[in-house]
Amino acid sequence: MTPVSAGSGKSLSDLFVEAATQAIDDAGIDKIDSLYVGNMMSGFLQNQEHLGALMATALGRQGVPTYKVEGACASGGVAVNAGAKALLSGLEEIILVGGVEKMSGYTTPEVTTGLMMAEDRSKVASTGVTFVGLNAMIAREYMHKYSVTHESIAQFPVLCHQNALDNPRAQFRKKISVREVLESPLVADPLRLFDCSGMGDGAAALVLAPGDAARKYTDSPVKIAASTVASDTLSLHQRPELTTFQATTMASDRAYQIAGITPADVNLLEVHDAFSILGVMALEDLGFAKKGTGTKLLDEGECARDGKLPTNSFGGLKARGHPVGASGVYQISEVALQLKNEAGNCQVSRAEIGVAQSVGGIGATVATHILRRMN
Amino acid sequence: MTPVSAGSGKSLSDLFVEAATQAIDDAGIDKIDSLYVGNMMSGFLQNQEHLGALMATALGRQGVPTYKVEGACASGGVAVNAGAKALLSGLEEIILVGGVEKMSGYTTPEVTTGLMMAEDRSKVASTGVTFVGLNAMIAREYMHKYSVTHESIAQFPVLCHQNALDNPRAQFRKKISVREVLESPLVADPLRLFDCSGMGDGAAALVLAPGDAARKYTDSPVKIAASTVASDTLSLHQRPELTTFQATTMASDRAYQIAGITPADVNLLEVHDAFSILGVMALEDLGFAKKGTGTKLLDEGECARDGKLPTNSFGGLKARGHPVGASGVYQISEVALQLKNEAGNCQVSRAEIGVAQSVGGIGATVATHILRRMN
Repeated sequence: MTPVSAGSGKSLSDLFVEAATQAIDDAGIDKIDSLYVGNMMSGFLQNQEHLGALMATALGRQGVPTYKVEGACASGGVAVNAGAKALLSGLEEIILVGGVEKMSGYTTPEVTTGLMMAEDRSKVASTGVTFVGLNAMIAREYMHKYSVTHESIAQFPVLCHQNALDNPRAQFRKKISVREVLESPLVADPLRLFDCSGMGDGAAALVLAPGDAARKYTDSPVKIAASTVASDTLSLHQRPELTTFQATTMASDRAYQIAGITPADVNLLEVHDAFSILGVMALEDLGFAKKGTGTKLLDEGECARDGKLPTNSFGGLKARGHPVGASGVYQISEVALQLKNEAGNCQVSRAEIGVAQSVGGIGATVATHILRRMN
Repeated sequence: MTPVSAGSGKSLSDLFVEAATQAIDDAGIDKIDSLYVGNMMSGFLQNQEHLGALMATALGRQGVPTYKVEGACASGGVAVNAGAKALLSGLEEIILVGGVEKMSGYTTPEVTTGLMMAEDRSKVASTGVTFVGLNAMIAREYMHKYSVTHESIAQFPVLCHQNALDNPRAQFRKKISVREVLESPLVADPLRLFDCSGMGDGAAALVLAPGDAARKYTDSPVKIAASTVASDTLSLHQRPELTTFQATTMASDRAYQIAGITPADVNLLEVHDAFSILGVMALEDLGFAKKGTGTKLLDEGECARDGKLPTNSFGGLKARGHPVGASGVYQISEVALQLKNEAGNCQVSRAEIGVAQSVGGIGATVATHILRRMN
């Protein structure tokens, strides 16, 4: 993983190669059978597509089959899922999956327009509503429906900033308080600046190999116990309910079933907290709290690194940063590092099973991964 | 497949739904396990990403796992390959793969910039060279190196236009002569207007299912005997040789090996003739002629629909049209129709094995599919 930064000065290729080289070196592999690249906005922001062959060339690995996979802000998670499915095909043994996004060096309107490509241009994006505006509607409805205060929800970014203090790759290594969240500038009522993830550049990559082969490359392999993707209607107006993401429920229910576990077995969590409200909703939709009660886990300290369900232990999207097409790969890489006991100052204790949830658009695509320590 | 047209007036969703609905109805399926969408330029041209969830919603199939797959002009072929690999994973039984591109309604400079996203923005596209300019360099080098005339190469678009006369979905249903190619306006020396595919809107879709299951949905199933992708350096200046696409050679050699055949067993061909020179080179790189002798097949009539190796029997990229992210799916669908004896007035006789070659960028990504009639 590269550090996430809004002033990296690095190109898409620079970022990708930095992360991919780390992954290749860490695994000690000398060949790659295929390359999957998750990215959302390069066509719009960099006028650059064909990232598969671009990155293969930049890595000196031209020849290998390459795939750019896009699923809006879930592109990284979806790319890992596509790679995992390819692994199951039995045709390939060593698969490199990376995610990359470069969001700095552009104006806020440019990036805002880019992010709205996740929504329907003809019916929603064209009205002028922004991504944070749509999430603000969800937050408003959630607070109203469940009588939850902004103070309670604001604990989520506070947790993430706390965790990011120990992550040298985090974009925002700065402790914040609930009061600071509530007093930060209003972006889209009720969401304030510190409810929102920032814009940053970053790339993350990981190496997938079949179970037995993986032991050749590491002493502490991590198993993908389940990898699922689900979709939902692209737009909020097409849904019966705003305060739950059915794609999260679908993807995670199926993942728990495939892995043969229940939420009670999970002891590590990375959720897609692009906005504070999404972090809270994820705790519920993933099965860790009943609807409307997600903030109770925060009240009780359960999501802290020393709690029962350490959540976003490297800082999450809010504080580690959210280079959108890369975030899903960051999350899965962070869960893997925790399970490998290689999380440095962010290390939690006794994690055996971790879940990463990656969300694209307003919950229209969700990728869920369950990782398990191989003993 | 939708008709290819530069004046469709249809949105990305309209186009995709039209093709996908045909595929779903033809197969008579009532469920889809996952959806793969090939597209190259929607982020740049339509400011629309997240085509997976967008199209699933448009089809009323929200919920299913969705993937947008991009590999420049090979996006369609790469999407079919990704779907075929997913099928082999055993996790899914019915996979819908579609490709879509909308290129009309934009200025030529806009589309030209969009197409150049297939090349390296920082080192090549930024110089101002266009896609046809790069292909013109290849044509010039090829003509010089092998002493082949433009007259010989121009037989390729003539063949395609001849075949397209019988294809009701073709963009250009107009017979042309070698003389007309040579006298058409110069675009990038030596390539003239009729050496180049046009800009059009279109979508194509197909249904993949495991071999035995496929018989439930059709009386004339077609087997994907091989599906391969290979890459090459993104840019021409990084290659030792301009007049061959190593990615074509790599992808097709592997495909022949997987299918257990040689080029001599192939009796139907769809090649990526975005420019006339690419059609000729493909005949060679795919193993049907020695380097520099591809035009001999045209001289001898072997590529005609009643020849030994019917090529681009529906009109190819030149005359059926080249909606870039969809073209690979058109090609594979057309091969399938031929093998199913459902090619209408374009039908060739006695085709058992067909090959489709889909090229992205200047040969930096190539997807090769070998289809075989199931008896």
